[in-house]
Amino acid sequence: MNSFGTLFRISIFGESHGKAIGIVVDGCPPGIALEPEDFLPDLRRRKSGASGTTERHEPDEPEILSGLHGGYTTGSPMTIMTRNRDKISSDYDDFLKIPRPGHADFTSLVKYSGFADRRGSGHFSGRITWGLVVAGVIAKRIAGTAGFSAKLISAGGSADIEGAVRKAVKENDSIGGIIECVVTNVPAGLGEPFFNSMESVISHLVFSIPAVRGIEFGSGFSSASMRGSEHNDPFTDDRGNTSTNNAGGINGGITNGNNIVFRVAIKPASSTGVAQTTWNFHSKKMDTLKVRGRHDTCIALRIPVVVESAAAIAVADLILTDRGIHDADRQRGL
Amino acid sequence: MNSFGTLFRISIFGESHGKAIGIVVDGCPPGIALEPEDFLPDLRRRKSGASGTTERHEPDEPEILSGLHGGYTTGSPMTIMTRNRDKISSDYDDFLKIPRPGHADFTSLVKYSGFADRRGSGHFSGRITWGLVVAGVIAKRIAGTAGFSAKLISAGGSADIEGAVRKAVKENDSIGGIIECVVTNVPAGLGEPFFNSMESVISHLVFSIPAVRGIEFGSGFSSASMRGSEHNDPFTDDRGNTSTNNAGGINGGITNGNNIVFRVAIKPASSTGVAQTTWNFHSKKMDTLKVRGRHDTCIALRIPVVVESAAAIAVADLILTDRGIHDADRQRGL
Amino acid sequence: MNSFGTLFRISIFGESHGKAIGIVVDGCPPGIALEPEDFLPDLRRRKSGASGTTERHEPDEPEILSGLHGGYTTGSPMTIMTRNRDKISSDYDDFLKIPRPGHADFTSLVKYSGFADRRGSGHFSGRITWGLVVAGVIAKRIAGTAGFSAKLISAGGSADIEGAVRKAVKENDSIGGIIECVVTNVPAGLGEPFFNSMESVISHLVFSIPAVRGIEFGSGFSSASMRGSEHNDPFTDDRGNTSTNNAGGINGGITNGNNIVFRVAIKPASSTGVAQTTWNFHSKKMDTLKVRGRHDTCIALRIPVVVESAAAIAVADLILTDRGIHDADRQRGL
Amino acid sequence: MNSFGTLFRISIFGESHGKAIGIVVDGCPPGIALEPEDFLPDLRRRKSGASGTTERHEPDEPEILSGLHGGYTTGSPMTIMTRNRDKISSDYDDFLKIPRPGHADFTSLVKYSGFADRRGSGHFSGRITWGLVVAGVIAKRIAGTAGFSAKLISAGGSADIEGAVRKAVKENDSIGGIIECVVTNVPAGLGEPFFNSMESVISHLVFSIPAVRGIEFGSGFSSASMRGSEHNDPFTDDRGNTSTNNAGGINGGITNGNNIVFRVAIKPASSTGVAQTTWNFHSKKMDTLKVRGRHDTCIALRIPVVVESAAAIAVADLILTDRGIHDADRQRGL
Repeated sequence: MNSFGTLFRISIFGESHGKAIGIVVDGCPPGIALEPEDFLPDLRRRKSGASGTTERHEPDEPEILSGLHGGYTTGSPMTIMTRNRDKISSDYDDFLKIPRPGHADFTSLVKYSGFADRRGSGHFSGRITWGLVVAGVIAKRIAGTAGFSAKLISAGGSADIEGAVRKAVKENDSIGGIIECVVTNVPAGLGEPFFNSMESVISHLVFSIPAVRGIEFGSGFSSASMRGSEHNDPFTDDRGNTSTNNAGGINGGITNGNNIVFRVAIKPASSTGVAQTTWNFHSKKMDTLKVRGRHDTCIALRIPVVVESAAAIAVADLILTDRGIHDADRQRGL
Repeated sequence: MNSFGTLFRISIFGESHGKAIGIVVDGCPPGIALEPEDFLPDLRRRKSGASGTTERHEPDEPEILSGLHGGYTTGSPMTIMTRNRDKISSDYDDFLKIPRPGHADFTSLVKYSGFADRRGSGHFSGRITWGLVVAGVIAKRIAGTAGFSAKLISAGGSADIEGAVRKAVKENDSIGGIIECVVTNVPAGLGEPFFNSMESVISHLVFSIPAVRGIEFGSGFSSASMRGSEHNDPFTDDRGNTSTNNAGGINGGITNGNNIVFRVAIKPASSTGVAQTTWNFHSKKMDTLKVRGRHDTCIALRIPVVVESAAAIAVADLILTDRGIHDADRQRGL
Repeated sequence: MNSFGTLFRISIFGESHGKAIGIVVDGCPPGIALEPEDFLPDLRRRKSGASGTTERHEPDEPEILSGLHGGYTTGSPMTIMTRNRDKISSDYDDFLKIPRPGHADFTSLVKYSGFADRRGSGHFSGRITWGLVVAGVIAKRIAGTAGFSAKLISAGGSADIEGAVRKAVKENDSIGGIIECVVTNVPAGLGEPFFNSMESVISHLVFSIPAVRGIEFGSGFSSASMRGSEHNDPFTDDRGNTSTNNAGGINGGITNGNNIVFRVAIKPASSTGVAQTTWNFHSKKMDTLKVRGRHDTCIALRIPVVVESAAAIAVADLILTDRGIHDADRQRGL
Repeated sequence: MNSFGTLFRISIFGESHGKAIGIVVDGCPPGIALEPEDFLPDLRRRKSGASGTTERHEPDEPEILSGLHGGYTTGSPMTIMTRNRDKISSDYDDFLKIPRPGHADFTSLVKYSGFADRRGSGHFSGRITWGLVVAGVIAKRIAGTAGFSAKLISAGGSADIEGAVRKAVKENDSIGGIIECVVTNVPAGLGEPFFNSMESVISHLVFSIPAVRGIEFGSGFSSASMRGSEHNDPFTDDRGNTSTNNAGGINGGITNGNNIVFRVAIKPASSTGVAQTTWNFHSKKMDTLKVRGRHDTCIALRIPVVVESAAAIAVADLILTDRGIHDADRQRGL
């Protein structure tokens, strides 16, 4: 089930230490001006390198195999991939005996009967989100004037992200964080009841990103403590602007034209340098595991652009869907 | 987009004050013993009647139109519906002029160009979740020994739910709440990377329920403040049991055999008896709206069984999918 | 897998002798004027009554349960059903012992482990196509100015349909026929490569109609004997009109604006009054079967409107899909 | 809409003269032994080289980018591609002025507003079927003991295929043909009513192959001239074997365990060396077109393995679907 979408359809592929990772984007309208360079800014935001991120450095340059001609999308599927280069696979052999707590080692073994490519966590690696970012760049073009902006607003429980990362690096541990994403200038009317509400589609995509533990829209979990009279967002003009935005720009699953706002909780990466006591499936007793290899202290640092891409993919698909079913009717004044 | 599912496919229909509401359940295996009475316990949990719920009382009895014969499912689509009876539609005419803040009045108008059936909120009504509960009953049978249990753990910010509701009723306002859902005895290996992770499918369904503002799995948003060394769940035996359950029973999108645990934030219903200052789209100036009609003070009281059903539908579909792609291979020892 | 479609999505349900048969139509744009009476002309064409059709007479009146309000489609799912009334179920008990040759008795038993509702052939009955005709009526409205016309052009190998039927009735046997369907005024540009070619979508739907054995577009099977120089359709003007139509209005899976033309082969109904020698699964030896009950001598007489509906459903879905992905771009001159 | 399938899902991509063509195969069970060499025999059958096929010679070697590790499928998506090498693109520039009759030049222009990659017919090229053959090889493994065999049984209306091709080459024209495909040892019970009948799924895939004009199962179009008493296939034993096979191994859309038999009509390739009189969209008058370039005199020579692959893909997907919904129930004796 590595594909998603109704009209803007994406199919993701690849393993962390395999030959390549990539994505097929189908349903992209023809005539969108696009160059390989256009993918670089967002891909750079996802790359490692800053303090708190892994020492694995991949060039990550996109190769466009199909769907682009003469500088424009053609309307046929765009396949974009990048070859894996900087891989050290020897680190992963022990995890069959002692599956890493918090990691997919165990569930992957159960599901794929031992045939999964476990090198670098294979298809479960955060590396696979490269394709989401690529699709996000295309989706943002379809979304037209809508603006997408996600950023890390806290890490390890602290708004002082830099300090929290520094402390975690020193302690050889990993930390999580909270990402906030805001979509501006989104047209009203996007989202399809009952099952393809804007929140449903965004959350479906966001929970495919490794390490996500929660999502909330607008006032989110705090709305559970509010009164209706304080939670409701009063309208202030004919265009549907509201004075507050507890709804996160969505009523009844459909955008109301105000900003879409949501927050995503990222857990700390399971690979930590701290020793852990866990079951040894080989010796059949508790054992001590210390994970070596190159890992992210704060994986949340690299995820904002992925969350942003998920939002863009959702918005693009719901724009095309709405246009297909509803738009012409609105245009002819129905 | 009123259908959902890969093999266990549901299609929901109906409006609050229309002729009927219902659901088509396709992909249900043949040979499951089922009677109309089997739907009643869960449907009763969703009904109004208790303090804090609306005075609209619907018999809600399910009529099974197809897919059941001789006391067993046949393998062809089950269509189950109930006729709407206790409807008072005069209350909804003013909401075109003054769309209720926090409600789908405005977005529905934009999307459906005024053609939506607005009586009782039409297809946007919480009433439509009746079909989810019906499908949930069938899904629970497919899920075999798995147990599903959701309950309201707080309302209006208070663990004293009864007290919070009493206070809100007195103040003529509405309140939200938090629901926790636990799935026990779920087999390891359910969930399909990349996009049909267990969290993706559950959250997709849960966000189709009106009034949901957030969802978190396991330690959820609090995991963003944790260290990897404290968040990771150590394994304690060969079956994959863990001593903690910060992952909510899911690693890499796939169940690990521990309980699936998630919490859902429910906002207060937008219909509150408190007067609200908002835009009047007819007079083109701010105005005062006081919502009349019969409404739920604490809609969260009725939603636990709906959340439980969403979880069951997700688990059932992922069981069938896993069986289709993976099961036989595991059986033959691959 | 009783649902079909990308944006115009239909879900069919019911059994021949169950409570009801029907269809859910999702993705219908709002604002289409429609009344229950609008379904009657096409439903009448599908009804029995004429010479050569079964003596089972169902009123077949459509009840619209949802999705219509104030005389217009609302944009939410339309559920339309009809109750079964004239059913005599005693006739079907013997077919477990001696499955009818050419019928689904045997395959249904294998697939559904004996739980299928076999009365009146249950979900395998041609009666289930009632829902296709209902969806076809709605689809024709979406298709706008396009005209759909299917008719029986031969029966039992003879262009003298009436004579062929009369002869078959006399001989107590069943006969097949060939239906030709023409779609006029269809816009150029419909159909989505690679897999949703216009031919793919039409044939997918047509082969869901019981008794269909073949389909061919334009010059069809005879094109296999033609030269390219005689098969190619020369263009004659800027609008893409062609002097011949061997392509049946479709090039590369996409409509070229000329008439879509296809023919469908209908086999003789398996229920014949002539005695047949076949295996008795109970006595474990060859036996003689003489099928009683009320059946169609020439089921092909009733299928043209169903084929027409299949074409309309395909065209409607591909119109909405094309509009979603391509239309706005064409409008803005891309 | 370049993807297809319920559990065994394929996404096809590429253009004739672009960088590469390929396919993503998702839903492939883990643990299937496979090597790059396994794809070569079927790919060779699709290649040009024999008399009557184009002089364009591509190495067509498959590169497996993902989903295979240690000689076995991993359960994650398999992406397989081949680079285009032997391309001469100068030939295609004139077809904007004079779209080739019978070709997608015109419809592609309408649909993609001129942005389609027209070199070598781009995404409309028969070259894109390379991916179908690749997916077919994998599908045949999933289909287990089932055997797939398609062959050209006539060309240009003649059973003397070699003679017909020789004559057409001499006359510088193109010819069509008829392909027959037989699937042996297919289990009974495959196919999902109502819309995913075995015929529906096969025909959907077959009509995505360029140049297909018709398909018929079993006795096909000739069944329209038969009586029920002669068309019905009598059972001859408990396993469902029948003495005739007019049904082509399918009753009610579900396999009955006898051979699946179907025939496919292939039109002559539109590119013919014979001069054609057709509309010049530039000069706005009738003109003469003589197509240069390298083309297939009898494209039908290369399509049998593609048709075979389509059948295998359909069977594989329906095996996985049936296993997901029905198999366990049959196993536990329901």
